[in-house]
Amino acid sequence: MPRLVLIRHGQSHWNLENRFTGWWDVDITEKGAEEARAAGELMAARDLDFDLCFTSLQTRAIKTLNIALEHMGRLWLPVEKHWRLNERHYGGLTGLNKAETAARHGEEQVHIWRRSFDIPPPAQEAGSEFDLTNDRRYAGIAIPNTESLKDTIARVLPYWEERIAPALRQGERVLISAHGNSLRALVKHLSNIPDDEITGLEIPTGQPMVYELDENLGEVERYYLKDRLTAG
Amino acid sequence: MPRLVLIRHGQSHWNLENRFTGWWDVDITEKGAEEARAAGELMAARDLDFDLCFTSLQTRAIKTLNIALEHMGRLWLPVEKHWRLNERHYGGLTGLNKAETAARHGEEQVHIWRRSFDIPPPAQEAGSEFDLTNDRRYAGIAIPNTESLKDTIARVLPYWEERIAPALRQGERVLISAHGNSLRALVKHLSNIPDDEITGLEIPTGQPMVYELDENLGEVERYYLKDRLTAG
Repeated sequence: MPRLVLIRHGQSHWNLENRFTGWWDVDITEKGAEEARAAGELMAARDLDFDLCFTSLQTRAIKTLNIALEHMGRLWLPVEKHWRLNERHYGGLTGLNKAETAARHGEEQVHIWRRSFDIPPPAQEAGSEFDLTNDRRYAGIAIPNTESLKDTIARVLPYWEERIAPALRQGERVLISAHGNSLRALVKHLSNIPDDEITGLEIPTGQPMVYELDENLGEVERYYLKDRLTAG
Repeated sequence: MPRLVLIRHGQSHWNLENRFTGWWDVDITEKGAEEARAAGELMAARDLDFDLCFTSLQTRAIKTLNIALEHMGRLWLPVEKHWRLNERHYGGLTGLNKAETAARHGEEQVHIWRRSFDIPPPAQEAGSEFDLTNDRRYAGIAIPNTESLKDTIARVLPYWEERIAPALRQGERVLISAHGNSLRALVKHLSNIPDDEITGLEIPTGQPMVYELDENLGEVERYYLKDRLTAG
């Protein structure tokens, strides 16, 4: 039966500072690196193994994957990186911490942006400090200037269908290192979670989440690896 | 004009201990990691940039690449890993240090194996401590049990022709992180170095070697980046 493991990147500097990060490329902290090491060691100890890995174009997810793979003795596995697995784009909120955002927009409004399914934050202004237009890694891509969770899901799922699901159907064991909201997109799809519930689903950093799937890639079981003595 | 950069992995534990390593998967030392960092910083400082990276299935080359890319802000680049870029397989010498090899086989014979183009060391015995038959990363591959440099070249070049050369012809800027002998294979090919000279060519660890190529991928110029103030 197909098995998929999802892992949210280890703590980043802006997780720590409570700043909206989105597509901005923020590195992981030493604690984040330790989370990645622990995740790799846990997967190895539980005999989880993989054939193929996917990650975003963002340093925090790639480094989390690299560190975990190193501690599994699996640095040699193929890794495919794609912008569709990037974090949700937080538009004009990018770079702001919670206090700054509340001062500028009001607590109520911030809560709406964080927790609504389809209301995007205000668009990022062109030429802003966090504008990625000139970042070569996104050349040829229509970089969003803001995204709701719904928008994020809409650009994650084509990649799931095109690259990840076919690999699982062919019997490959897949590990995905990504972000809170790109992983929510996958969890919503796989576990059929309603719009108004998915926004409240918190995925902790650095904790391998295991999906046991049926042959149609429907969920049989979903659990955090730390909660089991053995996988499967 | 196509540009290619080759880098030999940073110092490994067995480089340090003077042991024949070959396909055995030995990690880099802290000094090796520093060499990789310095290589990445040097490439970034000289404005060398890339579109595509290649490496072997061996930890020391993959980690060297990952560390260099991190220090260039380029972890997001696509990386293709392949066994054909692995180090030369040292057969029955694998794991022996220079003194042990000389004691067992004689100085003269060791010199011949190290420096001849087409004489392989004795084959690795099946079931030896360093037998990779059960290493999943090589499933489906006819793992050599020893290789001369000539043998190494013969299995590196098809990968060059099939994957690397076409990328260069399409204008992609390529970085390869690999090993002393898989890089000798490429240098021999690109610089048309005779059989009896290539075995003496020493490629230092962690030093980016730049090839400026013509449109037929012939050498226009070859230099170590550290010897230039600007690339190109």
